[in-house]
Amino acid sequence: MNGLKEKYFLFQPQGVTISLLTIPPSCIDSSTGATPSEEMNGTGNLMDFLDEPFPDVSTYEDFHTIDWLREKSRDTDRHRKITTKSKESYWELIKSLLDAWSGWVVMLLIGMLTGTLAGVIDLAVDWMTDLKEGVCLSAFYYSHEQCCWTSNETTFDDRDKCPQWQKWAELMTGHSEGAGAYVLNYFLYVLWALLFSFLAVSLVRVFAPYACGSGIPEIKTILSGFIIRGYLGKWTLLIKTVTLVLAVSSGLSLGKEGPLVHVACCCGNLFCSLFSKYSKNEGKRREVLSAAAAAGVSVAFGAPIGGVLFSLEEVSYYFPLKTLWRSFFAALVAAFTLRAINPFGNSRLVLFYVEYHTPWYMAELVPFILLGVFGGLWGTLFIRGNIAWCRRRKTTLLGKYPVLEVIVITGITAVLAFPNPYTRRSTSELISELFNDCGALESSQLCDYVNNPNMSRPVDDIPDRPAGPGVYSALWQLALALIFKIVITIFTFGMKIPSGLFIPSMAVGAIAGRIVGIAVEQMAYHHHDWIIFKNWCRPGADCVTPGLYAMVGAAACLGGVTRMTVSLVVIMFELTGGLEYIVPLMAAAVTSKWVADAFGKEGIYESHIQLNGYPYLDVRDEFTHRTLATDVMRPRRSEPPLAVLTQDSTTVEDVETLIKDTDYNGFPVVVSRESERLIGFVQRRELTVAIKTARQKQDGVVSSSVVYFTEDNPQVAEACDPQPLKLRRILNLSPFTVTDHTPMETVVDIFRKLGLRQCLVTRSGRLLGIITKKDVLRHMAQMMNQDPESIMFN
Amino acid sequence: MNGLKEKYFLFQPQGVTISLLTIPPSCIDSSTGATPSEEMNGTGNLMDFLDEPFPDVSTYEDFHTIDWLREKSRDTDRHRKITTKSKESYWELIKSLLDAWSGWVVMLLIGMLTGTLAGVIDLAVDWMTDLKEGVCLSAFYYSHEQCCWTSNETTFDDRDKCPQWQKWAELMTGHSEGAGAYVLNYFLYVLWALLFSFLAVSLVRVFAPYACGSGIPEIKTILSGFIIRGYLGKWTLLIKTVTLVLAVSSGLSLGKEGPLVHVACCCGNLFCSLFSKYSKNEGKRREVLSAAAAAGVSVAFGAPIGGVLFSLEEVSYYFPLKTLWRSFFAALVAAFTLRAINPFGNSRLVLFYVEYHTPWYMAELVPFILLGVFGGLWGTLFIRGNIAWCRRRKTTLLGKYPVLEVIVITGITAVLAFPNPYTRRSTSELISELFNDCGALESSQLCDYVNNPNMSRPVDDIPDRPAGPGVYSALWQLALALIFKIVITIFTFGMKIPSGLFIPSMAVGAIAGRIVGIAVEQMAYHHHDWIIFKNWCRPGADCVTPGLYAMVGAAACLGGVTRMTVSLVVIMFELTGGLEYIVPLMAAAVTSKWVADAFGKEGIYESHIQLNGYPYLDVRDEFTHRTLATDVMRPRRSEPPLAVLTQDSTTVEDVETLIKDTDYNGFPVVVSRESERLIGFVQRRELTVAIKTARQKQDGVVSSSVVYFTEDNPQVAEACDPQPLKLRRILNLSPFTVTDHTPMETVVDIFRKLGLRQCLVTRSGRLLGIITKKDVLRHMAQMMNQDPESIMFN
Repeated sequence: MNGLKEKYFLFQPQGVTISLLTIPPSCIDSSTGATPSEEMNGTGNLMDFLDEPFPDVSTYEDFHTIDWLREKSRDTDRHRKITTKSKESYWELIKSLLDAWSGWVVMLLIGMLTGTLAGVIDLAVDWMTDLKEGVCLSAFYYSHEQCCWTSNETTFDDRDKCPQWQKWAELMTGHSEGAGAYVLNYFLYVLWALLFSFLAVSLVRVFAPYACGSGIPEIKTILSGFIIRGYLGKWTLLIKTVTLVLAVSSGLSLGKEGPLVHVACCCGNLFCSLFSKYSKNEGKRREVLSAAAAAGVSVAFGAPIGGVLFSLEEVSYYFPLKTLWRSFFAALVAAFTLRAINPFGNSRLVLFYVEYHTPWYMAELVPFILLGVFGGLWGTLFIRGNIAWCRRRKTTLLGKYPVLEVIVITGITAVLAFPNPYTRRSTSELISELFNDCGALESSQLCDYVNNPNMSRPVDDIPDRPAGPGVYSALWQLALALIFKIVITIFTFGMKIPSGLFIPSMAVGAIAGRIVGIAVEQMAYHHHDWIIFKNWCRPGADCVTPGLYAMVGAAACLGGVTRMTVSLVVIMFELTGGLEYIVPLMAAAVTSKWVADAFGKEGIYESHIQLNGYPYLDVRDEFTHRTLATDVMRPRRSEPPLAVLTQDSTTVEDVETLIKDTDYNGFPVVVSRESERLIGFVQRRELTVAIKTARQKQDGVVSSSVVYFTEDNPQVAEACDPQPLKLRRILNLSPFTVTDHTPMETVVDIFRKLGLRQCLVTRSGRLLGIITKKDVLRHMAQMMNQDPESIMFN
Repeated sequence: MNGLKEKYFLFQPQGVTISLLTIPPSCIDSSTGATPSEEMNGTGNLMDFLDEPFPDVSTYEDFHTIDWLREKSRDTDRHRKITTKSKESYWELIKSLLDAWSGWVVMLLIGMLTGTLAGVIDLAVDWMTDLKEGVCLSAFYYSHEQCCWTSNETTFDDRDKCPQWQKWAELMTGHSEGAGAYVLNYFLYVLWALLFSFLAVSLVRVFAPYACGSGIPEIKTILSGFIIRGYLGKWTLLIKTVTLVLAVSSGLSLGKEGPLVHVACCCGNLFCSLFSKYSKNEGKRREVLSAAAAAGVSVAFGAPIGGVLFSLEEVSYYFPLKTLWRSFFAALVAAFTLRAINPFGNSRLVLFYVEYHTPWYMAELVPFILLGVFGGLWGTLFIRGNIAWCRRRKTTLLGKYPVLEVIVITGITAVLAFPNPYTRRSTSELISELFNDCGALESSQLCDYVNNPNMSRPVDDIPDRPAGPGVYSALWQLALALIFKIVITIFTFGMKIPSGLFIPSMAVGAIAGRIVGIAVEQMAYHHHDWIIFKNWCRPGADCVTPGLYAMVGAAACLGGVTRMTVSLVVIMFELTGGLEYIVPLMAAAVTSKWVADAFGKEGIYESHIQLNGYPYLDVRDEFTHRTLATDVMRPRRSEPPLAVLTQDSTTVEDVETLIKDTDYNGFPVVVSRESERLIGFVQRRELTVAIKTARQKQDGVVSSSVVYFTEDNPQVAEACDPQPLKLRRILNLSPFTVTDHTPMETVVDIFRKLGLRQCLVTRSGRLLGIITKKDVLRHMAQMMNQDPESIMFN
């Protein structure tokens, strides 16, 4: 593992050194206490077997950052070659056309595979979630709904009760009621949950340690130009898909949305390997991955536009317009494939389809904004709590027993969830019920209103009514469910199983929103003479839609955790399809972001990136300090001078010694040690290969041969001198330079926008030092610690 | 007009020199044959009076490009100062908080003003469009709909006919029927149209030449960092708003959407002047303008999310995430304000509200894709035709008579439009009718189907029926309207009045789509045993929705002209609010883009930018040629050496001569003419000011004084030597440099991403030359002409 040589250290001003890149990333198991490289070797054999790195894939090593400019220029070279060739023959022309269309083909394949996988996951989760409660006698592979759907004996009112579907107690003892049956069902519910989660965590640990977590922090880091081999491999794809089903079915407080993005990116990576255009260029590969992320969200929610925006706003680093169009296409194909599979049985694309019948009123903006505030506070609480818990996991004994942790949390979740009908069912069913407006035919407890016997209205336009006892008991249960969800989600996210946080966050918000909604509704009904209600809520009118409050609450809470705004509203908008409700959603999302930002700028993904020390240069952080390039560059004043090569006076032996003694990624080449005028930069890897090849194949190249980087042919002074080695072809003649007086904010901007790996510092043409991406990151962290307030007001 | 010194010349390989920036931009009247500066002076007095440039606004001159990096660093300096000060006192703290929130305040103001203006424009257009046909007797300021809305004497069936509303002939002669009345109405219709368009073009010509056109090409250019003083001024705002109403009311084939973006940007610029944070920084100002553009589209269509995406995809150049959130907020406020004004009287945000009741079927994708192909072909035809016509306008006598041109086109439009009921009404009404599904109560000619007398179905679910005679005659009229719109739109866009092309493009597509939709519907009805219809269209079912075809066609045509994809689908999606129809829309939009791209990469806005020679560096163009920085830099081999200053041997007189003899924007400073080692770059403007100030205020500075740029204090050798002038403080010590071997694709990327104005070229620390933005643009144009095919396959 050569790559592990590159370490990122963060020097904090207090003198405490914490590792900026603590390899292994959080997901790699640290329970054995093995060092990363040992650990990687342990599972490495299997991964190598299934996920062979392509030869000549790139010149980057694992856990290194890529040079975007270089990748781009390599792609242009390739493209230019193909264009030139295409004029030679028809075959080459066809090949060039195929190459031009390969991007769209990859998108098509990604969309189809992602949609199919999402459909399979949906079906499997449905079935296995219901399996915890009972089984379908007519066909054991039917979920509860499918089972009763195919039954002829059910009436419309009792859609959920059909003789083919039997609870476990009924099947085993014949009794479906009574304490005994309840206890038996309870016991089997917990047992299934434990079994599923144990299977999930074991599969992750044994086969694909990278398959855990939501994957979005890692994907953000990879998209910003970091290499993590195997993170998007076939093996990870397979295991993540299987364990995701198990984890969601186990009833833990987690969702499938984040992991689906990871699964989609794995698909993207898989199909990249079919085309050398993408497999051999890390920059182009990342364009495909950005689009794959869009496809992932598209199928997670059935929201193709939301998916594209999510990829743009939240995940991607480099997102040219071409990628926008391709993402759009991939998201479309994926959504379309999912619709063809039709896992929800209703031809709907979306996860939570809702239709509301009444508009909202200006005065309702107050509770909506309050929900936004709640969402912001929940976001802050969740991020702080979860990060504190994850840090504890990393630093204490806790992290050594991931399987036990999952088992314990699953046990607690299942034991606490079963008694409460709102937590017993799957979280997405819960959200779906909370979002729904109470129609006339609704049999849910939440819709147990006291009906006016004289009422004879059309079905869809029901006026506000007083709440019945069912609603009040539902409120209590919802309140308990809220507390339970808030606490358990903090401990669940980050365990060693696939876990997304969209659904749990939305559940928290939906519960809070529905409670607020019912409260407002009842207040409006009982006090419609109050000034605030007078104008818009006459008796007998349908003024308040509690389901809308649930939706607004869900958006607020999701926004508080992830800090999405536009993509969030678009996703919610696609779920409802009602432009009418865009203003409440926007108001809640923006409020939630403001409130959460006041307590800390980072969303959950950035926090996890920071926790794991990934070298991620966030586009959102603004660097506003007054430091100059000269303050950041290496070497510092006390350090030995920069390791450089000269253009015509270094011997092969000198170069070999330099390579052996240092672990830099490359070396600047100067005219001479005296003048220090920079002429280029040479990559360590290319230098090593070039010298090795020359020693093997080129006669007369010995240790004392002089290495020449000059343009002109070297003049061999005396005949007895050894053959010189010309290496100009591996010299990068356009290294990126800044002057020592360049403000660091400009340097940060350049690194960010051009995706540089390193930059040389000069003064009046003389080479002074070098700044690498890690130097920039270290400096930014240092400055932020010195003056955390200065970034508050942006 | 100092700024006119900077000219952009494009050297074409054939040796033909065409001006890359032909000042005046297309909108400035060229009819008088006056040179631009005379012309500007002519109207300049008035504009100066109303639209005073702010003193100290920036160091840029008119028609110059800005340096993004420098603006950004100036803003950081300002921000840093405020943060430091905020610790001194509570007052300063409050001021710093106000400063931090000023961005949101500006957004709020922009949203509110834009929404209000859009509402006023909608109301005025409604009224004036109807004024061409008749007047409301109960209140002359009521439009037809408002007039009959308030009337008690109308029944539901005859909503459009009420006694208060009288056509001109009825009012003047007492007869509402007959040939005489028809001719009189015809005559007055044309007369009003001519009056409105004459007023519009006169106002534009006399008061604000910049108010013409859609404004989007210019705004794109401005957002990319170009300065056009007055383009977004108060005067332009006022005149554009008024003339927009006149132009749309005149019945010309143009829309209000593009100009509304211009109006919104004017509002943005107006409010920028309230806060020095934005008024004094051209970079920050552009962030506000991006958000304003989003607000403009938001109110144009009632599509806030679509507006944000339009700004991102189509208009903006630099769009950080912070701007995304602010745009979102501005779009929200604008849409909300418009809703409060409620110009359409239906509490709907959207321009064309539609609701469809039936899903679409897979087989329908074939006609949808065909509509996509039609849209692409229309886009190509329109762009080529319009550009050819505009080029003719620029180069022939035609351009000298803009008023006459407008009058003639209006005359032709009105004369041809009146006889056909589908062209007589306003284009947005036409689109609205074409989008609508035929309900049971619809009285339109398009809905004249043969009803089955036995039918007793719910109102909304009408099965496919055979078309009646009304539908067939409507089809003929629509076909004629299609041809008319296609031809007249090509000649209308680009005239000297405000003109948007969204609505005409959508109209073309909607007509074509509706025709195709009715054809498919009738085919399905009469041949439901054909294999293609068999599976999904049983007799008596409602299979085909012609309105949906109209919508898909509109999306395809708009996509073909503008090459929008994601924002287009989102706008259409917001109009319908139905996620169900997203796949047809996406399929049509992507097909249309592919087809149109096959004939030429550029959308209408890019074509107009190129036609007018604006210095716009498109992010979408990929530069794939193998040239190096050394091929592009000045001076060329045959040219005199670069004008440089030395750090300690140039006299004040030398500098003054240099400034007088050249018109460069700045000069590199080198150690000495022998070594040519670069130490910095000094702006022409700052140099001029510094020397002038020094001569006035600093004793002993005379022509023979030596100008020092060095860090150390200059050693005055002899007492009799004149006092030296130290100018290090105006020296930019971190000029941007690349080496002469840097590939031009990298240089283009750097210019694009960092928004540079110029870049110095060095080799081994020695200064060789300079590359400016115009050099880059000229080189790109040159390369594209050499090998136009090479950019085809991307």
